Amino acid sequence: MTVEGTIVETVDAFHRGRFHLVQPKGIGHRSGMDAMLLAALVAGEGPMRVADLGAGAGAAGLAVAARIAGAEVLLVERSPLMAAFARKTLALPSNACFAGRAEVLEADVGLSGRARRQAGLADDVFDHVIMNPPFNDRIHCRTPDALKAEAHAMDDDLFERWIRTAGAIMRPGGQLSLIARPQSVAAIVDACGRRFGALEITPLHARAGEIALRILVTGIKGSRGGLALRMPIVMHEDGLHAFTPFVNALNNGLAAYPRLPRP
Amino acid sequence: MTVEGTIVETVDAFHRGRFHLVQPKGIGHRSGMDAMLLAALVAGEGPMRVADLGAGAGAAGLAVAARIAGAEVLLVERSPLMAAFARKTLALPSNACFAGRAEVLEADVGLSGRARRQAGLADDVFDHVIMNPPFNDRIHCRTPDALKAEAHAMDDDLFERWIRTAGAIMRPGGQLSLIARPQSVAAIVDACGRRFGALEITPLHARAGEIALRILVTGIKGSRGGLALRMPIVMHEDGLHAFTPFVNALNNGLAAYPRLPRP
Repeated sequence: MTVEGTIVETVDAFHRGRFHLVQPKGIGHRSGMDAMLLAALVAGEGPMRVADLGAGAGAAGLAVAARIAGAEVLLVERSPLMAAFARKTLALPSNACFAGRAEVLEADVGLSGRARRQAGLADDVFDHVIMNPPFNDRIHCRTPDALKAEAHAMDDDLFERWIRTAGAIMRPGGQLSLIARPQSVAAIVDACGRRFGALEITPLHARAGEIALRILVTGIKGSRGGLALRMPIVMHEDGLHAFTPFVNALNNGLAAYPRLPRP
Repeated sequence: MTVEGTIVETVDAFHRGRFHLVQPKGIGHRSGMDAMLLAALVAGEGPMRVADLGAGAGAAGLAVAARIAGAEVLLVERSPLMAAFARKTLALPSNACFAGRAEVLEADVGLSGRARRQAGLADDVFDHVIMNPPFNDRIHCRTPDALKAEAHAMDDDLFERWIRTAGAIMRPGGQLSLIARPQSVAAIVDACGRRFGALEITPLHARAGEIALRILVTGIKGSRGGLALRMPIVMHEDGLHAFTPFVNALNNGLAAYPRLPRP
């Protein structure tokens, strides 16, 4: 990656320093809260195989690997630049305790059928698939930065293609987890279609009284269960800058946000 | 309606006795909380023209007429039996103060084009369209009662047809309001499509910590505004049987639940 000489990179701590991420500065999508909340949707102890689709530098997938000792994680990223950062991240000494359970696959999540399998995404193997799909934030998309545009170029068809891949590579009964904008709720539910059931949607609000910034969505491959709309998660208590203790725990890998008990 | 001799009917008070509803007992859909919350989505003072699609005995539409002195309400109902109950409701002396502003139209909401107009639903005339579409509640649909089955027979196509009609009969800038199950969120958003924008979705929970029982949805005809997922309304405080003061006010016609201020 000769281009790297021209890119300023940062090493950012997550989970109170229990793992670090090498990220380009000023270009591409920088991971943060969204990735940590997405990772919190994976509950249980493992062993489990987890695929992070559109992994970027690996934030969400590695947050799962750092919290769950039995998790083996595949970071799937199309951009050679971001995949290179994911590999750099895995090479950091401070990530050594889980780097052996993580791998980077440079592949386009939108591929299907034989092309997908040939790219390294086999059928019916993962227990969990997580994704934080890129979206087109109309307010903030004024930048000409091509890499950021790619990470934020979102449309309904993208959910259809990404969730189709998630359904294909997951074992029956496996769990899809994603974080997205509320505006995408119909595209997500439609794409889950008959592939995923027992959907659970949790709105995420910065503060009580404000509209939701994100939705957290999980579903089970092949389930015929109905959709459940859960109580929202509110990140900040009124008048306080800090996260609530629960959100802080999710953000720092100290707790998962499990699915509802079902009969 | 010779059949009426065989049907037990009740007269039920709403809005703390400010209006009454004649309903069949033991058959058909009996109106209650859902209809009152739906009516609360219509804010403002009037004058305004309001259509209640699938009005049944008229609960939601008459709750609007009872609260908003300037509202003229058309109750649209396909079932001759339920339309007859709506007419009986309007004839009650206790409803005299707004009965002059309400009318019953026996018509199928699912009609389109010329058939719809010929049935009495003209283009571009209403300021508000409200609907509490029938749904198929899998837990409670064990009854062989045909009328209840009709009121609860719901599918995605029904939202498409009903919202198409709502879009056709409403003036540009008019407001769609509906109450539905969370399971229908994608069908509703898809049906709103380019007809309605600036959608607002509010989950309704019986108690904090439980999953949502309903969603309240509003949208504006022709708007290009984005979808907003609002904070939920919780009906009961922990451990209490009574409604919260806010829900009590909505249920009794003492307050509306207005849309968000938008630029």
